[in-house]
Amino acid sequence: MELSKQELIDKIKLLTEQTSISGLCEILDFFLQGNLDEKIYFEEKKMLLNALNNLLKNNNGYIALAQINPIVGDIEYNSKKVMKYINSATSIGVDMIVFPELTLMGYPIQDTIDRHPVIVEENLKWLKEIAKLTKNTYAVVGFIEPRTDGRGKRYYNSLAVLGEGEIKGIIRKSLLPTYSEFNDYRYIEPSPVAGNQSPETLGKFSPDNVVNMPKTNNIHGISYGISVCEDCWNNDEFFSNPLYKEDPVSELCKDNPDVLINCSASPSRAKKEQLKHNMLSFISKKYETPVVYVNQVGAIDDSSFDGVSRAFDKDGKLFARAKSFEEQFMIINPKLSFGTVYPLPKGLEETLTEQKVFTLDYEPDLERTYKTIIQGIRDYFRKNGFERAVLGLSGGLDSTVSAVLMADALGPENVFGVSMPSKITSSESRNDARDLANNLGINFAETSIKNMVVTTNDALNDLFSQVEDKWSCRYKETFTQDNIQARSRAMFLWGVSNEFAKCVPIATSDKSELYMGYATINGDMSGGFAPIADVPKTKLFAFARWLNKNRAQKNAIPEVIIKKKPGAELAINPKTGKPLIAEDALMPYEFLDEVIWRIENKHESYSDMLNSEFLYEKKTNISKEQKTQWLDKFYHRMSRALFKWTLLPPSVIVEPRSILKADYKQPVTSSHINYRGEKEEVIAEKLKD
Amino acid sequence: MELSKQELIDKIKLLTEQTSISGLCEILDFFLQGNLDEKIYFEEKKMLLNALNNLLKNNNGYIALAQINPIVGDIEYNSKKVMKYINSATSIGVDMIVFPELTLMGYPIQDTIDRHPVIVEENLKWLKEIAKLTKNTYAVVGFIEPRTDGRGKRYYNSLAVLGEGEIKGIIRKSLLPTYSEFNDYRYIEPSPVAGNQSPETLGKFSPDNVVNMPKTNNIHGISYGISVCEDCWNNDEFFSNPLYKEDPVSELCKDNPDVLINCSASPSRAKKEQLKHNMLSFISKKYETPVVYVNQVGAIDDSSFDGVSRAFDKDGKLFARAKSFEEQFMIINPKLSFGTVYPLPKGLEETLTEQKVFTLDYEPDLERTYKTIIQGIRDYFRKNGFERAVLGLSGGLDSTVSAVLMADALGPENVFGVSMPSKITSSESRNDARDLANNLGINFAETSIKNMVVTTNDALNDLFSQVEDKWSCRYKETFTQDNIQARSRAMFLWGVSNEFAKCVPIATSDKSELYMGYATINGDMSGGFAPIADVPKTKLFAFARWLNKNRAQKNAIPEVIIKKKPGAELAINPKTGKPLIAEDALMPYEFLDEVIWRIENKHESYSDMLNSEFLYEKKTNISKEQKTQWLDKFYHRMSRALFKWTLLPPSVIVEPRSILKADYKQPVTSSHINYRGEKEEVIAEKLKD
Repeated sequence: MELSKQELIDKIKLLTEQTSISGLCEILDFFLQGNLDEKIYFEEKKMLLNALNNLLKNNNGYIALAQINPIVGDIEYNSKKVMKYINSATSIGVDMIVFPELTLMGYPIQDTIDRHPVIVEENLKWLKEIAKLTKNTYAVVGFIEPRTDGRGKRYYNSLAVLGEGEIKGIIRKSLLPTYSEFNDYRYIEPSPVAGNQSPETLGKFSPDNVVNMPKTNNIHGISYGISVCEDCWNNDEFFSNPLYKEDPVSELCKDNPDVLINCSASPSRAKKEQLKHNMLSFISKKYETPVVYVNQVGAIDDSSFDGVSRAFDKDGKLFARAKSFEEQFMIINPKLSFGTVYPLPKGLEETLTEQKVFTLDYEPDLERTYKTIIQGIRDYFRKNGFERAVLGLSGGLDSTVSAVLMADALGPENVFGVSMPSKITSSESRNDARDLANNLGINFAETSIKNMVVTTNDALNDLFSQVEDKWSCRYKETFTQDNIQARSRAMFLWGVSNEFAKCVPIATSDKSELYMGYATINGDMSGGFAPIADVPKTKLFAFARWLNKNRAQKNAIPEVIIKKKPGAELAINPKTGKPLIAEDALMPYEFLDEVIWRIENKHESYSDMLNSEFLYEKKTNISKEQKTQWLDKFYHRMSRALFKWTLLPPSVIVEPRSILKADYKQPVTSSHINYRGEKEEVIAEKLKD
Repeated sequence: MELSKQELIDKIKLLTEQTSISGLCEILDFFLQGNLDEKIYFEEKKMLLNALNNLLKNNNGYIALAQINPIVGDIEYNSKKVMKYINSATSIGVDMIVFPELTLMGYPIQDTIDRHPVIVEENLKWLKEIAKLTKNTYAVVGFIEPRTDGRGKRYYNSLAVLGEGEIKGIIRKSLLPTYSEFNDYRYIEPSPVAGNQSPETLGKFSPDNVVNMPKTNNIHGISYGISVCEDCWNNDEFFSNPLYKEDPVSELCKDNPDVLINCSASPSRAKKEQLKHNMLSFISKKYETPVVYVNQVGAIDDSSFDGVSRAFDKDGKLFARAKSFEEQFMIINPKLSFGTVYPLPKGLEETLTEQKVFTLDYEPDLERTYKTIIQGIRDYFRKNGFERAVLGLSGGLDSTVSAVLMADALGPENVFGVSMPSKITSSESRNDARDLANNLGINFAETSIKNMVVTTNDALNDLFSQVEDKWSCRYKETFTQDNIQARSRAMFLWGVSNEFAKCVPIATSDKSELYMGYATINGDMSGGFAPIADVPKTKLFAFARWLNKNRAQKNAIPEVIIKKKPGAELAINPKTGKPLIAEDALMPYEFLDEVIWRIENKHESYSDMLNSEFLYEKKTNISKEQKTQWLDKFYHRMSRALFKWTLLPPSVIVEPRSILKADYKQPVTSSHINYRGEKEEVIAEKLKD
């Protein structure tokens, strides 16, 4: 950050005069995130912390929320970050600083801790050393706790309350989400009790030695009811179908906490902010107790955590909310309902009270989608030591949006777009690709795949005739030619990735086409990362327009790219003599995406869909035969696409539900499922055969 | 099956005279599995069933075990099979026929039932229609039961006891395995009670309406305590670390059942037979009650179920055991300790009482390994509609063993081996590949990749120089050349798969090399199925020798292939001028495989390994420096290989633990894990920085 010492001093002074605690914390964030070097601005940081200390000293009950971005398994990195935040909080003199779930280990560590238990020992060692360094300001820190009790899984998902040089208490997670991207119960034992247990239980806790003690933690005269993530997601008045028997929050509330605190690692998804906001608000209102929620930011593989830590007063009113998709050090005071409400990604605020209905109006979710994916890309690269990306630019929508996202996430100088025309590629497509690259300022190269296709075909034709001598099952019509083109391109991209340091090839498949298996293995599906694999095509159109309007650089995507009908330009349509249009091969994307939405979100069956009116049908008249044919094609193609889904590289979860491996477990061997069902009479007949 | 009616009649008569119930059942198996056509041999089948009926009629308590191979999600197929078995059992007049866990749905269906709940409705409809057709012979049938109670997951994993045209009782699974390949708790609610509940609870059962009734099922005067799979895997005297609080079997035994029955879907793994045998024997002895265990056969994706249904008398003695990896209709009588003990895969019997120690002597597990993989391949193909396989033959061990397995699983006529020499490929390798193909009788073609490599290089060199203009990070030494060769080959194989019907390309990577990332994405790692991805290299050597000795056709694998040092023949070792040997690039395979074994099975850490003596060290003297260097290399390479593991196609779980996706969940973004750990003093110092 370019700032003279005097400018910084002036700024601190001004904010101090304005008693702007949030403004001062924003400067502290620059230090904590390394944008201001504390060696250079040593005195100024001290001044800043003093200023905050002065502003806070007339009241107790201040809490710092440490919305941080850990690296899963990198315990040293995470611990040092935690220590830095604790030190700042201590200098400021808040009562307590609260970190997200599993901060020291990072979330989700998955089966890795079963296979390599040494890293659990490590996170415990670091925790104990951090505890020794705490002072008057307490810290709530998440970690994996090994169990010695023989029965059950080997670990707890725990929080330690640290202060005055020691561990003051331990809280353990009871409700273990095991759905979607969550797999907690694979390696974590549920705690049989809510709330605080004595520090002597550390590593020795057993359901048989539960001590009856206050479930709350008393810290500087205020009692806190502390829980971990899912533990607050089971209120049976809010949820019509709660997942678990126990409700740890209601247990905590039996001891009348002054404040409820929840430490989370909760990734972003469409529609989730609405649910989370209303659920937390409901709990605070129900128990007439302020609720403080601290969430992780940053991405791990497919999961992109949004942060948006927040606090509600005892009437369920939001009084503090952190930024989304950014680390933040935030000071609140639940007693005073003190805090700053930062905005959500644009569009989301208005949807918080809206009914959950299906609409093809993606607009309110596009900024969140953008931030979710950008963070997903950035963290996958940064946390795995990658820096650069190479992708094919076809002039089509998928590669275009992918290129924009990669450029924004990694910086345009770190992205190479390669146009790889074949003989089918139109000159328009080549120009569109080049224009896009110019607009984005990414690197650009053009390399024809014509020779590759010819040489491959020569070799393959020879091989095919050898095979044909033995096997009489050669297809009359195949996608061999289409696939050779897609695979030649992928081969080039992987070549660049092999040859240049820290460079990852990008798979540009979108969600709609993956559902239809309209993607080539080792071709466009292939890469080290797939940024838009959970974005349906109709949303991509809206997203492209949104990007043109909302990025600093306007209209980077040539209008012609958004306007053209999607098609892979891998084959010529014999009827038109022009490249085949995807919707001709599949079905209208609006129809397709609605089918996906109805299955994923409403669990509708074939006959449910046949018997209800689609949004698509409200706009376009189609016959029952046409609808049946598209539905048949959908299920047929989807059943055969399942095995392709298992070959997708890491991506980013965007929608309420996805087909990404980390999120959706399915047997490939289920291609015989009859999604249409049978009538009882027919079943009886068939059984009598 | 070639058999004249008279021959069949004679056989039935002879077996009847010999009172050979098992012999007659083996003939019945031919009918049930479609090897004898019941339309042609209609009268003979009747005679067979009558003969069995006559032999059994002097005693009650006979049970048929239906060890069947369901197709996951194909409810019609599974239901018809169940009906056929019930009809036979009814004609024979046994008291009851018992099917494996989740027979109607197939196991494991995974999240598919959450996304497509219609298939659960379907399995319920089929169950009810089957119930109507039952008579005096009861049937125990596994199915997915939808829940209406709002709280918890949406399904139970249930068994229905059917008889006399109706549903007599329901048993629900309590213990939900959620580790390794199991994910039950993702979609199943645990039952709060063991044993039988009234049929009125079907689809309406709730923890709040548990009726206090006998937990056992009384069938023809005998009381049975029935449980589902994992429900019998929690005895706290047998397991030092039981996973769950409850023990459904001990609950059942409070009602003094005459016989315990367990319906399972338990896949095969090294060392598991030993555990299962001893555990079931222990339970029967402990409760002085016969134990009957019925298991699924057949493979679903990575899981290959071995069958081996069995029964123990009240003293823990095995008195009946079904075949492994085959469907079987078996009659036993726990009251009489009547049954036949079929052999285990060769070698396993002797290991049942052996201590679990590490040994590089793979011999006792090789027949099981063979059968596990063969079934894995066969069912993946058959159940997904594939018939043929194409694979590259390099003359190396991996592709050789893969070719043998594919030939045995699919028939040699359905396998195409393609030799794809490059300029590095030795003439020996080409000849070895050809000899192998000849020996196996598989189809063979040879196609050079030389032109492909030249053309790819021409295009890539052009592209690389364009990229180099912008990026200064070109590596001095790369694997680009190696990878181009591997990818050219995969491109050919995928081409064949595109061009010929029902043909799948085979990925030939082995476990040791996958651990080291010594495999090319879109190259040798690429395919629709990976038969040996869970077989470590040292086991592959033993396996190759075993194949040569134990297959009907002896010595199909040329000795020279087993003797040569593994190497990918993708690059020349500048020191020797010959193709690079894998062990030079990595480390000795014996050392490598021991590291893998110690991590997977003993959860050893870096320092555990450094400080204990390897089997390898007992044979070969190595310095501490050498050992440190290999361990460093191991962890370094493994961390960087994690993302490759996510791109593996379906394979077969063979070893006690694996890295296959279905079995081992890990975040790719964990490349910064410090497996070596730190001392407390160092941690304290680092935190003070």
